[in-house]
Amino acid sequence: MIETLARYRPGIETAINSLRPRFADLLHGINPWAPDLTDRLLAFAASGKLIRGSLAVASAELFGGTADSEVLQLAAALELVQSFLLVHDDIMDQDAIRRGKPALHEQYRRQGDDGGFSDPARFGESMAICGGDVAMLMALDVIASLARSPSTALRLTSLVAREISRVGVAQMADVANGHTPEAAGEQEIVNVYRFKTGRYTFSLPLMAGAICAGADQRIVEGLSEWGEIEGVIFQIRDDHLGVMGETERIGKPSGSDVAADKQTLHRLEFLSRIAGTEWEGLARWFGDDSITAEALALVQTAMRESGALDALQARIAALREEAAGILDALGLTQVQREALDAIDEFNATRLV
Amino acid sequence: MIETLARYRPGIETAINSLRPRFADLLHGINPWAPDLTDRLLAFAASGKLIRGSLAVASAELFGGTADSEVLQLAAALELVQSFLLVHDDIMDQDAIRRGKPALHEQYRRQGDDGGFSDPARFGESMAICGGDVAMLMALDVIASLARSPSTALRLTSLVAREISRVGVAQMADVANGHTPEAAGEQEIVNVYRFKTGRYTFSLPLMAGAICAGADQRIVEGLSEWGEIEGVIFQIRDDHLGVMGETERIGKPSGSDVAADKQTLHRLEFLSRIAGTEWEGLARWFGDDSITAEALALVQTAMRESGALDALQARIAALREEAAGILDALGLTQVQREALDAIDEFNATRLV
Repeated sequence: MIETLARYRPGIETAINSLRPRFADLLHGINPWAPDLTDRLLAFAASGKLIRGSLAVASAELFGGTADSEVLQLAAALELVQSFLLVHDDIMDQDAIRRGKPALHEQYRRQGDDGGFSDPARFGESMAICGGDVAMLMALDVIASLARSPSTALRLTSLVAREISRVGVAQMADVANGHTPEAAGEQEIVNVYRFKTGRYTFSLPLMAGAICAGADQRIVEGLSEWGEIEGVIFQIRDDHLGVMGETERIGKPSGSDVAADKQTLHRLEFLSRIAGTEWEGLARWFGDDSITAEALALVQTAMRESGALDALQARIAALREEAAGILDALGLTQVQREALDAIDEFNATRLV
Repeated sequence: MIETLARYRPGIETAINSLRPRFADLLHGINPWAPDLTDRLLAFAASGKLIRGSLAVASAELFGGTADSEVLQLAAALELVQSFLLVHDDIMDQDAIRRGKPALHEQYRRQGDDGGFSDPARFGESMAICGGDVAMLMALDVIASLARSPSTALRLTSLVAREISRVGVAQMADVANGHTPEAAGEQEIVNVYRFKTGRYTFSLPLMAGAICAGADQRIVEGLSEWGEIEGVIFQIRDDHLGVMGETERIGKPSGSDVAADKQTLHRLEFLSRIAGTEWEGLARWFGDDSITAEALALVQTAMRESGALDALQARIAALREEAAGILDALGLTQVQREALDAIDEFNATRLV
């Protein structure tokens, strides 16, 4: 399944680029910033892993449709939504680099700097706030314009608006967790996983693809629940790789989540287990940028020996069982079931 | 007409508050930030002048509909869109006060400060970026959920998404004009007026109300064009008050646009006329916070004597003629025509 998602890439890339005339007709006459923004947004949208768009196309194919131009437009719109979220996230997190290139606010900051603009950092962020807003609104217009029946297009538009509202609220907790002196509790962390990763990355594309294909409401609801759980599994695995992963495989410094003191279930599970043990002193490395490879190795060993990893593995196993139960009740065809099981397998065990 | 707009206020306020269960159902289970955000957004949305919402209801009544609960929901959604734009604008402009109260990012900044959060200013802005996003997305969901025919609801959703995309692009030029060392040209300024004020404040609500009432496409297109011109008239009058208005009437310091060096047609017209004249030295007051009442009086006199004000009045007169020509061609009823003429009269001559 996961390998096959890659085959949707060319079609989605083409669909993203095919949005250019729509941007041009609506926006390019307003001012010269508009065509330039279109170039940046479409290039950015096409440069991602296209996971959400691909899941939408896969879901449409699985549940009665084909990867027709409408489904590919939907996928393109979901990738534009992803661009919007990343553009705004990068401002919030002050990340200057995204996908190996300057983040949108950083691009404008540099432009402002070169042009002798006042307060280039503020200029960059303001332009990127607007740019993100435009990406989101254009994505919704693309979906509202899909040549499905008006009621289907409306349902898809509403679905996306609603799910991304939820992402916005989940993001607020994520922002707060990054600023508050208090550690986030388990439920808070899980809710960020559910709404930021689960519903957004899995439920939404799967539901959207199925709706676009005309699937039964029962299927759509099943995918909604299943996707939410799968997102939590995906995120726990992501956190695992953030502490235990090898640098060369995951593409970010090994143990980066420890140095950044990221509020993960791994962190919570670990810290709750080491109080009063020989490992207690290791807590100091969480949030310490200067963590050495040696210290990280100690944390990794203690993470294993304290039973934290086992507890998280058990949690993943329970979630997978819950997810499988949802699929059992849906009475899927073998092809459908195998495809979703492959996603589940990937989420729980991926090495990168 | 303008006086009668006030009579829609209670209905729109009620409609804004009636959105609470929708927010609650969708968002409040996610985390405690959600119900708190709902309170802030709905209170904020209801605290404005409700011009756009009122214009939408008035348009629906004029073009064949009534101020039914659906039209009021549409108006509430437009006010939520306005909240979104103001929340993001206040971040961009670093305005801590809005409608006499702390702006949303300032509210969160204070909360972060009180709670010992790291970097409260950044926390405040990040929360408000999310909060604005949520307002926009919820507004679109409200519109997509209107109990009109699916094709009407879809058309309204698309209209709003498209027009607000354009506002985003116009806002980029406005942001750039505030940071660049180069003065904005006439066309740049007029385009900000057309898309930020004209299409957004006039065309969009009038079109949306008329569509909701089932008006002919010919009427909707006429309102689109007419609204755009009326917005330019409104904005030139706004700029006039920003230079010439009396403090007590317009509610902001007299001459505030001069001190802020706001890129207006008044500024452009004036500066182009005083080069090489006895008034040349007055150019230094544009962008000078320390401008005295005496200096402002000199600018105001020169603004008048240089012919700048006359030129702008002539411009307004020409725009009003163009706007009237559009209405002539629409074959409106007397009631419709009088209502729109009253808006035109207000835009061109208002004293506050």
